[in-house]
Amino acid sequence: MRLLGIDPGIGRTGFGVIDTWEDVVQHVEHGCLETDKNDSRQNRILDLYRQFSEVVDRVKPDIAGVEHLYAGRNATTAIQVAEARGAILLGLAQRAIPSRAYAPASIKMTLTESGRATKFEVREVVMMQLGLEKPPQPDDASDALACALTLLYDVMENPDD
Amino acid sequence: MRLLGIDPGIGRTGFGVIDTWEDVVQHVEHGCLETDKNDSRQNRILDLYRQFSEVVDRVKPDIAGVEHLYAGRNATTAIQVAEARGAILLGLAQRAIPSRAYAPASIKMTLTESGRATKFEVREVVMMQLGLEKPPQPDDASDALACALTLLYDVMENPDD
Repeated sequence: MRLLGIDPGIGRTGFGVIDTWEDVVQHVEHGCLETDKNDSRQNRILDLYRQFSEVVDRVKPDIAGVEHLYAGRNATTAIQVAEARGAILLGLAQRAIPSRAYAPASIKMTLTESGRATKFEVREVVMMQLGLEKPPQPDDASDALACALTLLYDVMENPDD
Repeated sequence: MRLLGIDPGIGRTGFGVIDTWEDVVQHVEHGCLETDKNDSRQNRILDLYRQFSEVVDRVKPDIAGVEHLYAGRNATTAIQVAEARGAILLGLAQRAIPSRAYAPASIKMTLTESGRATKFEVREVVMMQLGLEKPPQPDDASDALACALTLLYDVMENPDD
């Protein structure tokens, strides 16, 4: 099974791909999709959607995990992220790829058993579990791999959700 | 010039179309796109996107005005609306139709000169300005026509934005 983790954003969307079979988990690739901040909001969404569609068509994931910022301290950020996520969910739905949503705290809790873990601690777990010698760069791609691992554990525990 | 007003939502998206030439403003049509609340979030976004694309391809607007909920009292609602808006902005960008965003208070202010006008007062102005004998139904479509009128006045005052 191939799992795609996504950390959506209008300026930067991280993605991370892992494969799993029997009790093996393998890192496949990770990266970051960027849009031009001088472009209009709707053109940035279009640019992100096109880049994301290319990744999905190349990687062909069976399922996706999407980081979901709930309204919190920075609601304006959460709203911008939600616009980007709308385009990403659309790209998944058009290919009939199911997705599950994870709040940042739930990703931290799953990987480190603490909802308040630092980015550094989460990254250490990602590196260890995927056998990576270097920290995945940039941070958005690392967060996306963390989301893919969270999805993996969720699917193993709740296969029918 | 043909203007499309949109009041986005994941469950209900209102749209309203007006034409303008010289000093004439004419109501063309309005309606509401609905998605099934029992469907998954990503499939509702896909359904909305398909319905919206059909409307845009049929109506062929020159420009669109999109109601923009900023984070306020109900940030969770604003985030769900933002996901739907992401799909709508994508549909516009794919057809190179420019859009402008309007907060609810700015629509009220433009049409009634009060940012605190009631929905009823806004609807009365919409009916009067478009020469409608009956209130546009449902409310989402009425809001979308209000957004189209706001866009019209904005374009007349700020043609180059």
